[in-house]
Amino acid sequence: MNKEMLVKLGEVMKKDNVDALMVAPGNDMVFLLGTSTHLCERFQALIIKNDGDYFYICNLLTVDEAKDMIPGHDVYGWFDGEDFTQIVKKAFEEHGLAGKKIAVNGTVRAFNVCKMVEKLDNTFVNGKDYLEETRIIKTPEELENLRKASLIADKAFEEIIKFIKPGMTEADVVNKIKAVMLENGADSAGGGIVARGENAALPHYMGKSGVIKEKDIVEMDYGCTYKGMWSDITRTVFIGEPTEREKLVYNTVLAANLAGTAAAVKGAYIPDVENAARKVIADAGFGQYFTHRLGHGIGYAGHEAPYITGVTQRNLEPGMAFSIEPGIYIKDEIGVRIEDIVIINEKGETEVLNHATKEMIIIK
Amino acid sequence: MNKEMLVKLGEVMKKDNVDALMVAPGNDMVFLLGTSTHLCERFQALIIKNDGDYFYICNLLTVDEAKDMIPGHDVYGWFDGEDFTQIVKKAFEEHGLAGKKIAVNGTVRAFNVCKMVEKLDNTFVNGKDYLEETRIIKTPEELENLRKASLIADKAFEEIIKFIKPGMTEADVVNKIKAVMLENGADSAGGGIVARGENAALPHYMGKSGVIKEKDIVEMDYGCTYKGMWSDITRTVFIGEPTEREKLVYNTVLAANLAGTAAAVKGAYIPDVENAARKVIADAGFGQYFTHRLGHGIGYAGHEAPYITGVTQRNLEPGMAFSIEPGIYIKDEIGVRIEDIVIINEKGETEVLNHATKEMIIIK
Repeated sequence: MNKEMLVKLGEVMKKDNVDALMVAPGNDMVFLLGTSTHLCERFQALIIKNDGDYFYICNLLTVDEAKDMIPGHDVYGWFDGEDFTQIVKKAFEEHGLAGKKIAVNGTVRAFNVCKMVEKLDNTFVNGKDYLEETRIIKTPEELENLRKASLIADKAFEEIIKFIKPGMTEADVVNKIKAVMLENGADSAGGGIVARGENAALPHYMGKSGVIKEKDIVEMDYGCTYKGMWSDITRTVFIGEPTEREKLVYNTVLAANLAGTAAAVKGAYIPDVENAARKVIADAGFGQYFTHRLGHGIGYAGHEAPYITGVTQRNLEPGMAFSIEPGIYIKDEIGVRIEDIVIINEKGETEVLNHATKEMIIIK
Repeated sequence: MNKEMLVKLGEVMKKDNVDALMVAPGNDMVFLLGTSTHLCERFQALIIKNDGDYFYICNLLTVDEAKDMIPGHDVYGWFDGEDFTQIVKKAFEEHGLAGKKIAVNGTVRAFNVCKMVEKLDNTFVNGKDYLEETRIIKTPEELENLRKASLIADKAFEEIIKFIKPGMTEADVVNKIKAVMLENGADSAGGGIVARGENAALPHYMGKSGVIKEKDIVEMDYGCTYKGMWSDITRTVFIGEPTEREKLVYNTVLAANLAGTAAAVKGAYIPDVENAARKVIADAGFGQYFTHRLGHGIGYAGHEAPYITGVTQRNLEPGMAFSIEPGIYIKDEIGVRIEDIVIINEKGETEVLNHATKEMIIIK
């Protein structure tokens, strides 16, 4: 693990009187160790103390992997059927953490913490932000990998607009997008939302069975990882000529996307960025239908700091990477979202990482 | 939601002095509502009170979906940037849950509960088992869907042994398995472990980049869903003639699989089932290398009750569905696991749902 990062993390923990950070498998673990174990219902976590020392607690079936991940550090294993809280207790006692304050990262499961609260005298607090803050300024290498991840997502858009035909299901489109990304160098392809017609009015639509029809709108939101860095793009296309109303909604969202990006300059106050985009949608009379924040940071996690909201009281700095993704969602009628990943690059310039066209695409 | 189930659930909660169950998106939600919303870092949950009433709390972007999922019931929305704990507070006050004891299901995130603990005067306890217990006896329809899900997994095995060739990566094999399952009617295809050579010695190996070589062992553990029900199968095959030692390990695991299945009869005490399989491996001198439980229940979740461990103090009943999956894992050398899904069917018979061969497969 990176020593400088451990020192920085330890200082932030000490300021909050937190004694250790508990990190369950997932993106934070990839950030710390370059790899992650598999997360299932069994308790496991890397524990990082505020003095920079760390150890691992897991089920026996993961002990060999954990030992390889943190050579020279303690790994505590528990066997299926054993009460894992007793192994945590032993590990905490041996590391001076009995009764101490433990912060949990974003992937720790609540039911496991409830079990620990019942058996141990530790206090558990929200520690989701610690590692996100530690990596909020991307390194040049991370920025380069973000660029590549976005280019792979762009490539999939280029292919998918040639592929989509009425009669296909949303699942057909999701599967094709994933396949194109994997063929083009993605290390993994994300879940992916493909929503036709009125399904697009649900921003986090989870279905896959909708059949694409003539005159449909098709909204696609997907991403991939490249060397640990995520991409995330949304494009909305039309099957056949859109109505005037559909054009108005599309062009409003596009204008909001451009306004948000234009406002996202080095030094900008994040609520001003959010408001620049939101104002465009409100002025067009669709304010109530833009129901979510303008964007989220991106990197080792698909969503991480900095969150682009009206209450994120900080300024954009070189090395920050985030989405700009306004949308308009009118139930049972229409949904349009247009999302790019934007960075403040090494030179302090605003750089849009997605090059897939945002011009209105009409598939005939 | 099923009224009978709600009454049963309410009774169990009351016995534990629990006032409500908090269910975040995932398999439990599919069980309850036939569908689930998308889980991201934003807090959202279905709250089921012990009197059978229920309501939903989510980010505004999911409100329309939630309203469709629980028509006639309250849906509380919060906007990005708002402190969600204040909406939870309002919802809890309106539903008589202020200061009450709330159980959390398996998918609720700990950091969100920590935020609630800080701002609300509720107590949170482990409630992972409530819904798993409620559905531990599968309906005839669920058993039928479990059978179909297993047949799809079997089909993928049939295809994959014709597909695997030295020079392929583990990812190539994972992708092919998933594609075959989706082509054969799976609603979704699970993560999937494909581990070559010494990678197979890590039971939950997460890598994908290993290149399959002559004389390798290839362990494949995967599953799919069919109408909400999971399958889960593991087979281990050889690329070219195995050594005598490899044959011994394979045949020991196979014998343990058969012994576990033979012991898994209606009325059997679960620790006896576990011990029947474990004894075979211990007697062959490999006891220390079988590092996990014999199996887990399966249904709406890939892992759910009944867990087949040495401390699960209950008996097998008609309608229970679970895996039998002994393994031997010797670090840097070899790993073999052979897994089937087994049910105690409507007639009280032990029925193995996987029909993919367990004979030693040698790919030349």
